[in-house]
Amino acid sequence: MSRLQTLTDEWVGQGLLLPIHFRDGQLVIVDQLALPDRFEYLEIDSAEDLCAAIRRMVIRGSGAIGTCGVYGMILAARGAGDGESGRRSLQQAAAALKSTRPTAINLHKTVDEMLGAIPADGRGMAAALEERACTILERQLRFEQQLGEYGAALLRDGDGILTHCHSGALAGSGYGGRALSVLRKAHEQGKQIHVYSSETRPYLQGARITVFELQRFGIEHTLITDGMSGHLMRLGRVQACLVGSDRVAANGDLINKVGTYMHALAAHDNGVPFYTATSSHTIDHQLATGLDHQVEFRSADEVTHVHGRWITVPGTDALYPSFDVTPHRLLSGIITEAGVLRAPFTDALRSLRGQETTS
Amino acid sequence: MSRLQTLTDEWVGQGLLLPIHFRDGQLVIVDQLALPDRFEYLEIDSAEDLCAAIRRMVIRGSGAIGTCGVYGMILAARGAGDGESGRRSLQQAAAALKSTRPTAINLHKTVDEMLGAIPADGRGMAAALEERACTILERQLRFEQQLGEYGAALLRDGDGILTHCHSGALAGSGYGGRALSVLRKAHEQGKQIHVYSSETRPYLQGARITVFELQRFGIEHTLITDGMSGHLMRLGRVQACLVGSDRVAANGDLINKVGTYMHALAAHDNGVPFYTATSSHTIDHQLATGLDHQVEFRSADEVTHVHGRWITVPGTDALYPSFDVTPHRLLSGIITEAGVLRAPFTDALRSLRGQETTS
Repeated sequence: MSRLQTLTDEWVGQGLLLPIHFRDGQLVIVDQLALPDRFEYLEIDSAEDLCAAIRRMVIRGSGAIGTCGVYGMILAARGAGDGESGRRSLQQAAAALKSTRPTAINLHKTVDEMLGAIPADGRGMAAALEERACTILERQLRFEQQLGEYGAALLRDGDGILTHCHSGALAGSGYGGRALSVLRKAHEQGKQIHVYSSETRPYLQGARITVFELQRFGIEHTLITDGMSGHLMRLGRVQACLVGSDRVAANGDLINKVGTYMHALAAHDNGVPFYTATSSHTIDHQLATGLDHQVEFRSADEVTHVHGRWITVPGTDALYPSFDVTPHRLLSGIITEAGVLRAPFTDALRSLRGQETTS
Repeated sequence: MSRLQTLTDEWVGQGLLLPIHFRDGQLVIVDQLALPDRFEYLEIDSAEDLCAAIRRMVIRGSGAIGTCGVYGMILAARGAGDGESGRRSLQQAAAALKSTRPTAINLHKTVDEMLGAIPADGRGMAAALEERACTILERQLRFEQQLGEYGAALLRDGDGILTHCHSGALAGSGYGGRALSVLRKAHEQGKQIHVYSSETRPYLQGARITVFELQRFGIEHTLITDGMSGHLMRLGRVQACLVGSDRVAANGDLINKVGTYMHALAAHDNGVPFYTATSSHTIDHQLATGLDHQVEFRSADEVTHVHGRWITVPGTDALYPSFDVTPHRLLSGIITEAGVLRAPFTDALRSLRGQETTS
């Protein structure tokens, strides 16, 4: 058995929820579109298959997409053979993988790192890439564990914790991604926590995927709608808020799934600390403030339909800004693999520059 | 034709959306459970029928339920006959109507007012009650128009206005209830307004009923999810927020559909005025602050299901606090039939005490 398969089996045995991995030599991915109705693996036979799955959103989340870069290159190397023609095949596969998500920094970094493993003499390429894959995957898991440790230290026994959207294992490397790594670590440390998962309309990631992972990890939880967090905070049920991040501006402004800003306002009004779990490479040092970021609008069909059925008067116009901007003044801390950053965030974030690790 | 039927036909001709009224002598109610898929009237043949419809939530909203008190007593009087036995029948019908909503102040007041119309000599009861009904219904409509006038003066041409849940004609007396009376009046005054209707999970009143009325009244609108209002305010799309009210405490704290508090926080953070449209009898002078009010929790099935299907992992626990409390410090004004109240609200609200009108 290859070292990669041995490592993977070990991780599965430890209860990791790997979004993409080899099972008895067959590459599989968890079908996120089938959740929460069914937990299913899809078999992936080639780098092309994997590109198609990424495009179809069967697998999503920046960490998981980064891991796709690793596995996509392994599949490509297995079919490519050695020598110059093998090298060219790998370069083509790398370009194809990157093109599935032109702005996914993580994916581009892992693909480049795998390309860097091609031996100068062009011999033993498949073995060399699998060895590099082990290095990257082990580092990614260490990263999530480390981030989890730093974050868990902020949570106390008995805390109620609000989360929004999905920032978990299936979007990451299998331990718990970002926000869920913190919750999972606190739970493993024996802290009795209770998570309130905000459903996250319109796409319902909180209801569909976060709740699935919380159940899987044995963490107590309750589902709420996005407008309820403020009331629960007033009732004293929430002691901390913890969300992932799509992007962090140089001044600490947080760009994350729409609804995040309103939870942060509620937290601030009730004296509840609000944290984001992120990674050093999610910090956009070129973006001075969150307001400089143009939030994309997605299909309004997500708002007007649930389960494919209209929830409003047919033909009604709707809007779906996919993210919102939480001003840094509402953040109590930014949890990264390098520790918890505190205000003033501009200085703290600048100190991380150039020290990004890939996860 | 009776004076009541004549009045009703006149109102329908003016474009009012009467939740309950006589059509060619047949009492009908708009089936709110069928919206937005179908706009249908249900025929009501007796006070008992009407009680059942109220219990089934086919008709809802404090104003509309108050009007049910009027029509329920008319039906009861038509079947009761004159004299002592007729009076006893009416008293029984009154008790039955009140018992459908033990805490609905408006319903209890209209029923009592109808009982007060029974002639001392017990003769000509049905005619006397219909005459009283005309008086009450005309007053209710004047009330909505007046509240609309006061509120519309706060809105400017070109404003984007956020609303939450449903506070409209079908919950009121047919013009526009509370919040929608303000929007309708502004629209009739020729102000170009654009309404953002927050869908109001879990029961989706904003998506199902508010959007229906906005379309019916020809007011431009866009549907959003509950977590999006803050982002739209940051984009400068919202110039005022306007919601109804379930109850107002003596200090001005607003108890309204869950999610209201978070919209109010977003408004405050963006310098957008936040108003509630209410009526003098919705002020609970016995309730010192909103925090003294025990918010009821309703069935969590509303949260875990949409269109009868699970939106989360089957078996997941959820919570549905039906209302939340918006502290008076976040309110810019309280719009009533007697004018717009401003802070300090305790004094302003006290001045209304004992001057409540029924709507």
